[in-house]
Amino acid sequence: MKHLLPILLISALCRPLAAQTLPADARAQAERLRDAALADATVWTRLTDFVDRFPQRLSGSPMLAEALDHIEAGLRADGFDRVWRQPVMVPHWVRGHEYVRITSPTRRELPMLGLGNSVGTDGRPLEADVMVVADFEELAARAGEARGRIVLFNTPFTNYGATVGIRVRGPIEAAKLGAAAVIIRSVTPYSMQTPHTGTTRYEDGVPRIPAAAITPEDADWIARDVARGQRVRVELMMEARMLPDALSHNVIAEIRGSELPDEIVVMGGHIDSWDVGQGAMDDAGGCFAAWEALRLMKELGIRPRRTIRLVFWTNEENGLRGGEVYKDSVAANGELERHVLAIESDAGVFRPEGFGVTADDPTFAKVQAIGTVLEPIGAGTIRRGGGGADIGPLNRAGNVPMAGLNVDGSKYFWYHHTHADTIDKLKPDEVQACVAAMAVLSYLAAETF
Amino acid sequence: MKHLLPILLISALCRPLAAQTLPADARAQAERLRDAALADATVWTRLTDFVDRFPQRLSGSPMLAEALDHIEAGLRADGFDRVWRQPVMVPHWVRGHEYVRITSPTRRELPMLGLGNSVGTDGRPLEADVMVVADFEELAARAGEARGRIVLFNTPFTNYGATVGIRVRGPIEAAKLGAAAVIIRSVTPYSMQTPHTGTTRYEDGVPRIPAAAITPEDADWIARDVARGQRVRVELMMEARMLPDALSHNVIAEIRGSELPDEIVVMGGHIDSWDVGQGAMDDAGGCFAAWEALRLMKELGIRPRRTIRLVFWTNEENGLRGGEVYKDSVAANGELERHVLAIESDAGVFRPEGFGVTADDPTFAKVQAIGTVLEPIGAGTIRRGGGGADIGPLNRAGNVPMAGLNVDGSKYFWYHHTHADTIDKLKPDEVQACVAAMAVLSYLAAETF
Repeated sequence: MKHLLPILLISALCRPLAAQTLPADARAQAERLRDAALADATVWTRLTDFVDRFPQRLSGSPMLAEALDHIEAGLRADGFDRVWRQPVMVPHWVRGHEYVRITSPTRRELPMLGLGNSVGTDGRPLEADVMVVADFEELAARAGEARGRIVLFNTPFTNYGATVGIRVRGPIEAAKLGAAAVIIRSVTPYSMQTPHTGTTRYEDGVPRIPAAAITPEDADWIARDVARGQRVRVELMMEARMLPDALSHNVIAEIRGSELPDEIVVMGGHIDSWDVGQGAMDDAGGCFAAWEALRLMKELGIRPRRTIRLVFWTNEENGLRGGEVYKDSVAANGELERHVLAIESDAGVFRPEGFGVTADDPTFAKVQAIGTVLEPIGAGTIRRGGGGADIGPLNRAGNVPMAGLNVDGSKYFWYHHTHADTIDKLKPDEVQACVAAMAVLSYLAAETF
Repeated sequence: MKHLLPILLISALCRPLAAQTLPADARAQAERLRDAALADATVWTRLTDFVDRFPQRLSGSPMLAEALDHIEAGLRADGFDRVWRQPVMVPHWVRGHEYVRITSPTRRELPMLGLGNSVGTDGRPLEADVMVVADFEELAARAGEARGRIVLFNTPFTNYGATVGIRVRGPIEAAKLGAAAVIIRSVTPYSMQTPHTGTTRYEDGVPRIPAAAITPEDADWIARDVARGQRVRVELMMEARMLPDALSHNVIAEIRGSELPDEIVVMGGHIDSWDVGQGAMDDAGGCFAAWEALRLMKELGIRPRRTIRLVFWTNEENGLRGGEVYKDSVAANGELERHVLAIESDAGVFRPEGFGVTADDPTFAKVQAIGTVLEPIGAGTIRRGGGGADIGPLNRAGNVPMAGLNVDGSKYFWYHHTHADTIDKLKPDEVQACVAAMAVLSYLAAETF
């Protein structure tokens, strides 16, 4: 105990000076919001009802359209100052029937998911010998072996950013060498025979070959068999195809600012998901945390100086068209430079830790000051770097400062893009703490920036 | 550091007196065995090759028969004193094609596994409204609602012993009330949309209705929809059927005792598995740990006073016929009362903690003494109570003392009876430590009992 006092003193001295700059009344309102979020379970009920009723909101699907109608109706019922929708033409990829089957040495069906945007197998099974590689380097070193093969990238997960490149570019690199198809080890640190889908890409001038994910268990199993000298043959069947672009929408609501209504804090998440599981953490939870943050302001009669705009972006998963259209619209109507901050929650709504912020030093210091209101709930850590896929275009086009909600991400990639992204993986108190974090940052940015 | 000496003294004083009774030479040999097991990765290579080549060893399947041939050949190649097989007629259940689909309110396929021994749906889908109950008590309280329904037991996992009764007796209790079929929430504390199979039972005089398991995620989802007042309809299709009993075998090997060859320490695991995953931890790992324990004795030239017999029991999962036939055979030939100890590993081959022992006090004290050799590797905790399904008949019929290997079981039931029971869930050093534990106990029991 005797060392505690000096530590406390050092801690106080190290606190950024900016922490002193929050006006007392704004801080008090933010604390009211924070505490209301922690006490109110509305978000959990709404989120659960939503994902049970509207799971698998893939761009172009009827389910996504129904989900958007439901959300717009809910926003109107909440009585926000403005509610509208913004048309967005989105890619319309459909999965269809699909399977992966080992045909030799022992016939066996494998859990699998075709990769988003992949082409299919022309209506018939594609059977070929498997070539196992660890990464692009090994593929390049053994380039002569790929022709006519199904290339299996058995790339262990290190971190998402490092590993996802195999999923995104695997079909391009393998097709350049004449491969017939690509199978990847699912991008995940943990699996219970759980395949993970996600976007892949093609490149003009390179043949478009089908691409699917199998589980780490099966990727390892095949790799062991090949290492034993066995010839492993696989049959891949995918009906996947890309249809003409479909009409979707960003859905938007606002609380207008009391003094500077033309200046905007925008926050939200993406309402589309993959066509598996419930898309509960990716990203209905992020959307509903932002929604509830705004609803609580209204319920508590808190109207900030600037406008707070809530956006449910569409088509983050396989196109990012919602984020691009939103950026284009605000660039066209002169609002882009009036965005003082963009906030996104798209890393799951687990226990919040704080925000990752991409901004200049003065703005970063302001967010640090706001973080002090979240310190008592463990969500006050403000780190450099961060944002979100849907708000990235605002930052790139207009240098809009952006912040992404950081959470305990220890299991996020266990569930990411799988059948297991379901509501039961989340916890009510953690989701409510995410609401508190979103509410505090959006309100105080709108009030004090 | 200054408190360490008294703690060591107390620890020494608390050590059971029995620990003093191990002869020094026997202890030294046991330590050699233990250390050899920790240093030798043979078991990992053998186990991996085996489960990759012979997964899904369901009783009556060609795969189980091939696996038994492979094991017998391996035992002969190892040069044990005796190797033989013992015929066992086993139930021959086949799964066939199967699915569960919600047809209302929203059509959706569910991950599922039919329960072992279940009847099928007479070659056509069985569609009915779902009645959700938490347990047998709720079923009894709402008995009038079950007729014609598919009863969903959405019973949360508490512990395996408490929860598995729903799987075993659910179809009986629901059929008594006129239910059309049973679906259970998989018996597991954790799920990533992972269904768990396992044995169910029927009772004479009660209609045999089909029974399947869905995932906890989907069981909860359906329960929420029903709680919202929705009518949930499900279509169940199962081709499952029971064929006439098939011929299988226990495969057995021995190192004969040097002084008391007619007295026997028997050890092993069950070589059959469910028809999913690889049956790596349930129970190929247990079998191979016991096998390797015996192989190391031979390799190190260690021949104990009594005979050590290694048994790969068949049909533990859905009949226990292997354990019963073995007991009957030794009861018939006079060996039953000469079994001084029976040891089984069937709780996974994770980090070993010690043994659970069902025995009289003097025998328990002897095992405690042996446990001191395993204390340095953290596997020396000897608890009262334990054994194994396959050795239970020996204990019940002949009061044979029995010991079951206890391991870190924190994740065992995540994988139990699923597609995810695969070799990657195990760790070489932990499997080798299990070998050490099995070797030390079997050798010292054979040497010093």
